[in-house]
Amino acid sequence: MGALTPEALARYLEERRLQVDEALGRYLPVAGDHPKEIHEAVRYSVFAGGKRLRPILVLAAAEAAEGLAEDALPAAAAVEMIHTYSLIHDDLPAMDDDDFRRGRPTCHKVYGEALAILAGDALLTQAFILLSGEPPAMAAAPVARLRVINEIAQAAGSKGMVGGQVVDILQEDREVDLATLLYLHTHKTGSLIRACLRVGGIVASAGREQMEALTRYGDRIGLAFQIVDDILDLEGSLEALGKRAGSDLRKKKATFPSLLGLEESRQRARSLVGEAKHALSVFGERGAELGAIADFVVTRRR
Amino acid sequence: MGALTPEALARYLEERRLQVDEALGRYLPVAGDHPKEIHEAVRYSVFAGGKRLRPILVLAAAEAAEGLAEDALPAAAAVEMIHTYSLIHDDLPAMDDDDFRRGRPTCHKVYGEALAILAGDALLTQAFILLSGEPPAMAAAPVARLRVINEIAQAAGSKGMVGGQVVDILQEDREVDLATLLYLHTHKTGSLIRACLRVGGIVASAGREQMEALTRYGDRIGLAFQIVDDILDLEGSLEALGKRAGSDLRKKKATFPSLLGLEESRQRARSLVGEAKHALSVFGERGAELGAIADFVVTRRR
Repeated sequence: MGALTPEALARYLEERRLQVDEALGRYLPVAGDHPKEIHEAVRYSVFAGGKRLRPILVLAAAEAAEGLAEDALPAAAAVEMIHTYSLIHDDLPAMDDDDFRRGRPTCHKVYGEALAILAGDALLTQAFILLSGEPPAMAAAPVARLRVINEIAQAAGSKGMVGGQVVDILQEDREVDLATLLYLHTHKTGSLIRACLRVGGIVASAGREQMEALTRYGDRIGLAFQIVDDILDLEGSLEALGKRAGSDLRKKKATFPSLLGLEESRQRARSLVGEAKHALSVFGERGAELGAIADFVVTRRR
Repeated sequence: MGALTPEALARYLEERRLQVDEALGRYLPVAGDHPKEIHEAVRYSVFAGGKRLRPILVLAAAEAAEGLAEDALPAAAAVEMIHTYSLIHDDLPAMDDDDFRRGRPTCHKVYGEALAILAGDALLTQAFILLSGEPPAMAAAPVARLRVINEIAQAAGSKGMVGGQVVDILQEDREVDLATLLYLHTHKTGSLIRACLRVGGIVASAGREQMEALTRYGDRIGLAFQIVDDILDLEGSLEALGKRAGSDLRKKKATFPSLLGLEESRQRARSLVGEAKHALSVFGERGAELGAIADFVVTRRR
């Protein structure tokens, strides 16, 4: 499998990001649509400067499996809508109570709690409006469209992303062991990332071996992504807090570094990325972008 | 069209309610499924003693259009999941802030706000898991299943139920005219009721004339239902408050009686039900249950 240079990867990610943003702009109700308050709130949160990692994974998976990125765009946009809904609800005062995200005030700080709850609800619903619409936004056959809907819904539901968020909320009062932390992350973020890869495969009519490879790749990078997030958070707070970091850490929620130590966490992330890349061998040259994205997950600084 | 006796209607509603409850029990994750807190919260709210009017409308519409109630059960259960999610979110402190519903503490009073938000999210998602599952819960062809999903998603989305709730939230600070009140109710409750009828028709492969009749019926009884709700609320508060009712009314949100007066509101509800029943003529005898349900909407005391 040929490696992508960092410049080629950056170009690929930027191209795909623009494609995803354009699709989101097209598939979301325009801001002036009645009632305009909700459509403004939805667009405020969707166009808040995300990296679009999840939808890009959908496109890259479709391409690896010999499909067209174009055909996977509706599924990619739907996944990003669901990701954004989850961020809006997670930021609510009753949940993580975050006032800022990516440096901007969160949805509920700008539009109020009621509208933020409803903007999340609207985005979750809009994903399914998009995927089931007639004439189809998705070129795939009806049975494949149903599979895409089911894959995304399962990933987002109470045994997927919502289940992970439930465990995250509840862990605040409890002693958390590694098994619980693994459940939390493989569900809160892992389920949807895994679905991105599988949905790209479904749109491209991937065969069984390809689907298994995409699933394995998705599971590995989903978890690696979260471990690296924990490491970056820790390094960020060590830098910011200097010698007060130790006491701050003791108050913090369980993380991979707090349970495994920093070195072991780094080692696990590297080894997961190795496994993810190994799974791509069935795609030959066509897996180059997914391979480069896997490397990016562990080497990114933010 | 033969009229159903009140006893026959009561028997029909009870039979169908039991059928819907059984289906919901089957289609929802069991309470012990991990993470159990969310599945308990979901079941607490779903099994809170509702009349199941919406899912019964799905079944009755399918039967009117010469389909089998059995085939419409998954769509009926999905609609009730979405209705329940909307109640859970509407009751939240940031929305209507209700502590009780049907005499029981609301979801967030029992499980806390975070879990209530997530229980609503889970139910909305579960509806789409159910409708897209493989092997299909729904016997209908893939294209028809996609139409059912789209119909329900559109009805629930930001230009349907969520849009109505947005206007309801925002009207608290504003002077409300009849056009706004009509928008609010035709969207907050009307969209999903209309979808119930159409989804029943889709499952039964209803033709164009039948679909139009079901849509017209759904629009009319959806609005009549809301007007009667307003009237019952007013009569209830008049009884409860005695002579203080006048001042209480001045503080209340806009309602049909407050904008149109009580007599004109009653007249509108009766005339909508008349139109709804008139639309049923295409179904002949098979429209008897829907006809009786329309009468029930205006004569009910709660």
